[in-house]
Formats: sequence, structure tokens, C-alpha cells
Amino acid sequence: MARSPVWASRPRTRGLVLDLIRAARTISRVELATATGLTGATISEVVRELIGDGLVVEAGRGLPTGGKPRTLVQLNPVARYSVGVQLERNACVIVVVDLAGRPVARTAFHGVASMPPERALPLVAAQVDALLTTAGVDRGKVLGVGLVSYGPQDRGAGVLLTPQPTEEWYDHPVAPRLAEILDLPVLLDNDAAAAAIGEYWLGAVDPDSTYGCIYMATGIGGGVVVAGEVYRGSTSNTAEIGHISVDVHGEECSCGNVGCLENYAGPSAVVRQAAQTPDLARRLALDPAGEDFLTEFARIAAAANAGDPQARELVERSARYLGHAAVTVATLFDLDLVVLAGPSFTVAGSIYQAVVQDQLDRRLFARRAHSVRVVPSVNGSDAAAIGGAVLVLQSELVRGRHDEARPVPTGAGGTP
Amino acid sequence: MARSPVWASRPRTRGLVLDLIRAARTISRVELATATGLTGATISEVVRELIGDGLVVEAGRGLPTGGKPRTLVQLNPVARYSVGVQLERNACVIVVVDLAGRPVARTAFHGVASMPPERALPLVAAQVDALLTTAGVDRGKVLGVGLVSYGPQDRGAGVLLTPQPTEEWYDHPVAPRLAEILDLPVLLDNDAAAAAIGEYWLGAVDPDSTYGCIYMATGIGGGVVVAGEVYRGSTSNTAEIGHISVDVHGEECSCGNVGCLENYAGPSAVVRQAAQTPDLARRLALDPAGEDFLTEFARIAAAANAGDPQARELVERSARYLGHAAVTVATLFDLDLVVLAGPSFTVAGSIYQAVVQDQLDRRLFARRAHSVRVVPSVNGSDAAAIGGAVLVLQSELVRGRHDEARPVPTGAGGTP
Repeated sequence: MARSPVWASRPRTRGLVLDLIRAARTISRVELATATGLTGATISEVVRELIGDGLVVEAGRGLPTGGKPRTLVQLNPVARYSVGVQLERNACVIVVVDLAGRPVARTAFHGVASMPPERALPLVAAQVDALLTTAGVDRGKVLGVGLVSYGPQDRGAGVLLTPQPTEEWYDHPVAPRLAEILDLPVLLDNDAAAAAIGEYWLGAVDPDSTYGCIYMATGIGGGVVVAGEVYRGSTSNTAEIGHISVDVHGEECSCGNVGCLENYAGPSAVVRQAAQTPDLARRLALDPAGEDFLTEFARIAAAANAGDPQARELVERSARYLGHAAVTVATLFDLDLVVLAGPSFTVAGSIYQAVVQDQLDRRLFARRAHSVRVVPSVNGSDAAAIGGAVLVLQSELVRGRHDEARPVPTGAGGTP
Repeated sequence: MARSPVWASRPRTRGLVLDLIRAARTISRVELATATGLTGATISEVVRELIGDGLVVEAGRGLPTGGKPRTLVQLNPVARYSVGVQLERNACVIVVVDLAGRPVARTAFHGVASMPPERALPLVAAQVDALLTTAGVDRGKVLGVGLVSYGPQDRGAGVLLTPQPTEEWYDHPVAPRLAEILDLPVLLDNDAAAAAIGEYWLGAVDPDSTYGCIYMATGIGGGVVVAGEVYRGSTSNTAEIGHISVDVHGEECSCGNVGCLENYAGPSAVVRQAAQTPDLARRLALDPAGEDFLTEFARIAAAANAGDPQARELVERSARYLGHAAVTVATLFDLDLVVLAGPSFTVAGSIYQAVVQDQLDRRLFARRAHSVRVVPSVNGSDAAAIGGAVLVLQSELVRGRHDEARPVPTGAGGTP
């Protein structure tokens, strides 16, 4: 028979209380009871359990409100950690975050993603181990690893359904394999979705917001968060803004669609356009044959910031296309906020922010109902890796809401 | 402090049980307990209450499964009714549906939406009264009215934020005013969102599906349903597919955006293109200056069906644009199903279905993860009006899940 859609996501009390404590930073038991509708006795019991597990600590007393002063509780950020691994065509970023989602250690290295996964994954695992050791984080406190990369994916199976970073990665069981090597739970998710949820966990957005994240690294991805949950759709392959069409008459993309945004606004498109502007290419000493187009793109973005009119025109052109697609995403998802995240917004983010904001102000269908703000990510260029780690925290600590998103379990002894 | 996103939608047991009974058609108490995780005693109590209220009736015994045969329960479709009113530029459709969402009476008339709302709403109310009388439906059993029309809207206030059907409707309190005249609760919603949820309530889609509805009448709208709930975004102004751009170099639309789908694929665009095809215009005796372009469009669609090559080329062109935008919507929302609904698919729906399916098969970003099926609506050209009535059923009977979507209450005695 039909399964009720609502019961399928029935929350567990413990996870909910913990999430409320996280969101509030400090909160009293009375406020927790009011917010959840649970009795004071139930709240006291749950909080006692969370304190017993070391996840929550008491944090002094709140201001008296007539009765006796209320004891506040807060997360104990050093109680648990998680690891985020972002795998990109050109680089791999690893972060360790505490229970509050704040990075406590970070490393980045090149080359690994151009290897076949059989060689790359042991190297990634060695880097994770080294980073945990350097940071002095007790492995027993590590909840798991969030591995984030390109879509499309089979998230349940922990498999990439794309010939990226290279052909060999297609259909390789990346998450189960990494879990096996590390002997830690590993979940696979989309990098842009991860970047999106990172904003929420770090308290940068209103908890009730419906917001979108545009993530630009070598490519362009997207994620949408509704009231603290990643919008998942039918298979978690959502909000792929880089592969929506901006031009019905555009050229065919390798993805099968025509006129894809990425081919107009992405870093490689900007570098290609710059190479066709001889003056600019010479002035910035661009190497259009170079492998590392993100470095070339950063050089163009820096020149745009410094006022080079040709560079500025190219970056603004990219931003106009991005804004055009942002209007589509905001019109369909009815967003109230757009976050720009990822390494390719690092240098010229303010140009993108202004142009995208202008397009949304003028062209959003529902602008009479509400406006949409455009802001830079609080997590900057590491947003995807941090978000990957945050997805582990959310999945492990707010259980029941994310049953299908639990990390792939490892063998005996793997779960701390 | 921050409000928990999950507790905000805490379901009420009674509504959930009723929704399960509706979805299952017939179901035993034991199955209800299994599906909800509630105890047998709680289920028995809730079912007893629902039977006492006349909403549910016993329906014989199920097949024995080892123990004693189980008594089945089912909705009592004649226990409650609701009314759906669709207001379009050219026409108004009113339906009365029973508790199962099946239409029991229908009327349609022209002209009313071209009047200012002060004149139109009393006429609509009179038609609702007349239809209820004709159908022999006891007013005491009518839960309310779902008024559906164009976006953008302020759904909470029951106000259209668009100068459609005519300028005078902009910002007019349509829902509160109609509630006052009818002395019944009235909710306002988007016509395409209504058409989308109608499919679910009538059991035409898998309850766990993430599907989109493309609704084409005079314009083109959309709605997305995730596991039985309309995707709402920040202000319920979602999935406006008619006003996403298919061409970044396209002409400016009255909505403020450029290259909007509606101006390429909508009925008025097809009629305009036909008028510029002299042979065709003469053959079909088209009147390009005519007010009622839907009739002209239907004539072109009929000619396309009959094999007229010029008419067929125009309809297929419209379908290709529609398919192009459907790829965008499916890529962003990660849909597994697209439903084509509304009067403008009535004649040439099979042409649209084939062309849209072909585009999705070839161009969807996540097609390696899953396919997307394209199907016609079970509710045909009245999908929006039926959906409006269904939104009332869902809102009134599955309370707690839709607090913000409850109909605007009337004065004393208005709520049955």
C-alpha cells in the first residue's frame, strides 16, 4: 500500500533537540519545550542524555524572566568531528570540522583527481589520516567523511554517474571504497548541495529561508535548501544550474543539452574568450593551452577588479549569463536568497554579486511578492568541502530526518 | 530564537490516518498501524472518530492472512464536498468534487474575468450557489472553495499580485471578498500548482514521486509536487515555467524577463505564427484580430492532428520550446514525471507528449540516474479547477501539514 509521505520523515526527538540547540547557540530547557511542543520532563530527559554523551554542555544562566534563572545549554563543539573531502578535476580539498561546523584543519593538493580512482582514493585516505593526526583529533570522535564531487550521482550507492574527474571515475564505487580504506563511514553527495547546507549549519541564513547556492569551481553547480534541508528531488540530482540552457539556439554541450550556462559563464569559457582578445591575452600573459585554467581565470578576474576594461567586460559578461540563469532558478524554486560559493568567486565575487543582484531585481517573476538577496558564502572557496563535513554532522546527529542519506557503513568497528 | 523546520510541519494523527485511507482506497486497521507506527489502540480510536464523523465507512473484510479476517475501511466520498473555481482571462470554470476528489458537477462561462472584481465576484458566487443546488449538495457538507488563478500571488492574504485577468484585479482581496459573499472559507492558490496536486489526490501518481505539472491554458504555468505536497518555496510563487527564459537574446516580456517560454510556445504565440503563414491562415479561416485566441489555437491544433503539415510544424515548434523548458525544470527539480494539464493540451496533447518526452530523453542532465515520463493529466482541461477543490480537501482534512494554506476564514457561522 501507499506509504505516507509525512511519516517517512518522522523526526527523532533527540536529533531535533540537538538541532535546536545548534541553531540557537544557547538555549534553556523551557525554550526547548516551547519550541518542540514536548513536555518539560521529556526535554529534561533528552538533554540529560545529550550531556551524558558529551554532545551538549551547560553554559551558565540566562537572564531571569520573573521566575528562577534558567540554565542554558549549548553544543560542545569538541565532542565530535567530521571530515569533508572535495574532489575536483584539478584539486582535492580536505577539511576537518568540529560539531559546530567550524573548520579546525584544512589541506589541499593537486593531481590526485587526474589519477584513476584505484590510485587516487588511497592517497586521499592517507591525507585524511595525516590531517586528523596533525589536528590532534581523536579518531574515535570522528563521525564520518562527506565526500563531495560532481553530479549526476547515485548517492545511495556512493557512485559517480559522470566521466569526471576522468573517465575511470564513472560508476566506480568511490564512497564504499573510501570507507573501506579509512574504516570510517563515508557519504557521497553533490558538491554544490554540500556548499548550500554549509551556510545553514554555520548559522549564516534564516532557518526558515528557501535559498539557493550557486557553486562555481571548474564548473558551475547549484543546491537549494528549504528550511534547513537540502531539496532532494527524486534522486538527489537537483539544481544543476550549469547544465540548464540559456540559449535554445546554443551549441550542444557534452551533457546532451544545448546552450548550457557553463559554456557561457564558466571559468573555461571566460579564459577561452580572453584568449580570443589578443590585447588582453598578451597583457595578462595568458596560456590558452595551459592545463590549469582556474589560474588563468583568476588572473582575468584580478585584472577585472583592478579596472582593466577588457577583463572587466569578460567577467561582467560571465556574470550576466550567471544572473540570467539565477533568475530561472529563483523563479522556479521561489528563492529568497542566492549564495555565491566556491573558488571561482574568490577574486571577482563582488562583480558577480552586483550583476546577479541587478538581474534578479529586474527580471524575477515574483518580484512583486518579495525580493531576492545575493550574498557571498560564509565558507568562501572551501564551501563544498566544509559542506561535505556538515552533511555528515546533519546525517549522524539529526537521524531519522536523513535515513536515506546516512553514510555507507564500514565493516565491523567502523562506526565510532 | 530559531524555529525548528521539522516541528513546524508536525502532522496531526487524524489527518494522516485519513490521508492514508484516501491513498489506499481500502485498508485495514492493522495496515494503518504498520504504516504509521502508531499502536493498534490509537488507530482504533482515530478510525472510530472518523467513522463517527461520517468521513470513513467500513467496507467489508479483507482476505484472511492467517488470523481472523480484517475489516477494511474506506473514505465515504459523499461525506464532504469542496468547490474549485478557476479564473482565467477568457473563462471561469467551477467544479464541485466529493471527498475523493471526483467531480460531481461542473459549469463554465465566459466574460466574467474581463469585468472588474467588484462585479465579477458576486457573479462567480451566484454560479457556485447555483451549481451546489443543481448538484443537490448540502451546503453544510461543503468544506470550502479553492479559487485558483494566475501568479504571482500573496497567497496568505488571498490577493493576486498581477494585472491579470485585467488591471483591476491587481491587489484586490479576491479570496476574502469571495469568502464574505459565499459565507464559505476560500483559499487562493496558483492554478498550475492546483492542477499538480489534483493528480496526486486522484491517485494518478506514485505517492513518493517528485513530479512536475506543466499547465497550459491562455498562458503556461507549472507546479511541482514532492511526496504529496506542493513545493512552496518562500512565498508559494513557484515553478513559473512560462516566465523562464529560453533565449538570453530574446525579446523583453511584460513580466520583465527576456525570452520567456510563453512568448514562444504559448497558444497566442502559435496563433501569431499561424497568422504569418498566409496559406495556413486562409485554409483555417483564422482571425488574428479575434479576441478568443484559444479557439483559433484549437483549430490549428486540430489541423496538426489531421496531418496538415504547416499546422503540424507550428505545433511541433511550440512543443519543442516547451520540451526545452521542461528539461530545465526537470534538471533543476530532479523530476521523475511530467504531467501535461490544461485546456490547451486537449486537442494536440499527444503531439506535445511525444516531443517533450523526446527532449527529456535526450537532454536531461541526470538521465543516467533515471528517466522522466511524460503523461497527460487524468483531470484533462479542468485540472486547475479540480485541483483547487482538492487543495481545500487537503488543507481542511490533513490539518497541521498545511496550517499556512488554510482557507481564509469567513465570519461567524462560515465554517461548516
